[in-house]
Amino acid sequence: MNKQPKITLVGAGPGAADLISVRGLNALRAADVVLYDALVSQELLDEIPADVPKIYVGKRANKHSYSQDAINALLVECARLYGHVVRLKGGDSFVFGRGGEEVNFARSYNIPTTVVPGISSAIGVPALGNIPVTQRGVSESFWVITGTTLRGELSEDIIAAAATNATVVILMGLSKLPEIIEVYQSMQKGHLAIAVIQEGSLHSQQVVVSKIDDVIQAVSNQKIQPPAVIVIGEVVSSIIPEIIKDNYANTSVESAY
Amino acid sequence: MNKQPKITLVGAGPGAADLISVRGLNALRAADVVLYDALVSQELLDEIPADVPKIYVGKRANKHSYSQDAINALLVECARLYGHVVRLKGGDSFVFGRGGEEVNFARSYNIPTTVVPGISSAIGVPALGNIPVTQRGVSESFWVITGTTLRGELSEDIIAAAATNATVVILMGLSKLPEIIEVYQSMQKGHLAIAVIQEGSLHSQQVVVSKIDDVIQAVSNQKIQPPAVIVIGEVVSSIIPEIIKDNYANTSVESAY
Repeated sequence: MNKQPKITLVGAGPGAADLISVRGLNALRAADVVLYDALVSQELLDEIPADVPKIYVGKRANKHSYSQDAINALLVECARLYGHVVRLKGGDSFVFGRGGEEVNFARSYNIPTTVVPGISSAIGVPALGNIPVTQRGVSESFWVITGTTLRGELSEDIIAAAATNATVVILMGLSKLPEIIEVYQSMQKGHLAIAVIQEGSLHSQQVVVSKIDDVIQAVSNQKIQPPAVIVIGEVVSSIIPEIIKDNYANTSVESAY
Repeated sequence: MNKQPKITLVGAGPGAADLISVRGLNALRAADVVLYDALVSQELLDEIPADVPKIYVGKRANKHSYSQDAINALLVECARLYGHVVRLKGGDSFVFGRGGEEVNFARSYNIPTTVVPGISSAIGVPALGNIPVTQRGVSESFWVITGTTLRGELSEDIIAAAATNATVVILMGLSKLPEIIEVYQSMQKGHLAIAVIQEGSLHSQQVVVSKIDDVIQAVSNQKIQPPAVIVIGEVVSSIIPEIIKDNYANTSVESAY
């Protein structure tokens, strides 16, 4: 082929296919090849023309796994072979998505790279249940943190964040929930409201809304599994609980707060 | 009319019309009436059928301004009169968008209210210039703060944030830039990289990338105006400067960092 090599990083949003941006969907339909991740829905993949190669490069259990170095190399190789590569990721490519590494790598091979932002799960998943990450008079800011750090330890940022009045949103943190709770309880903040949302925006979505002190039991009762978004702060209790319940299927509001 | 009253809060994204989600665009096309804000593009308003009333409720100078109480009342009134109200806002309704207040108010009148999240400027605007808010080995978190608080003072959260390793994103903070700089300089962080992005995603977009110590001069040279997104942290310098320059029109990269 003689097509000009280029790469577009597209954020697919939190999960439901129609939460991709119009620009992102147009890029997908115009791709010469697509590299996609585990959290991208089948419905969205069905929007790609049938003759366009779709390469799974996710990092989940039970499937062949690519290292980031291998993905970087594949992006460049595909751009040279096919032309327009769309790199499709869940959420936004730059919110714990390693998009920055891909941009720098592609640039070192002089391949033009543009980014189509996506709705990050950090904001979009709470919003779908009518939980605002900011609320006038309640929270002037929100802090988004990964639960899974490079070193596998609890991020120092979570400890710093728990001491502030910011709404705290933790992605990929369900396995660290006991340690997170401990941080808040050690600061006498066990009464704060917390929401744990599994597979937000999908039909399989499940939600627990609780006090921090009661959340481990609530998550266990409801059998919440990763991936999940954790939201901690007064904003969770600033919305009338029935509204949250109405807006999520399978919501358990465990405690009045 | 006998249509069932309901309200959908739709986030339009950072500005460019095609950064709205597919779900948001579909809601807009199916609306019986639309209430929209100052930061929504004309191109997006053109997607609304011609016979559907479009009511401007923005809060900008030189135009009639509605209080939040008036907007709340109008939402409920319009739902009763017309049926399906789409409330269209720039960015995401829950990121300093007062969406939570609208949801609670509508609920108190038993009007079903759903939310379609949008791409927040806090993430989307930096992403469009290939500036990642998180980057492995550089930043494990980002903290999004309003520059314009309820009391008109600099948010305490900015002072707390400057002391951490989080990427700091400030919305509506351009008029507070001298105070923000002072906070960082008082902590010996004047060498940190900062990006100031005016009207991100639009053709009128302008960008300054600089050290904190030099940013006031750079912003003045480039005549940056509100609305602007401010990004502070090592992530701004983690991307090769030429990439940022290539991806924004009218970029001034004032200092090597």
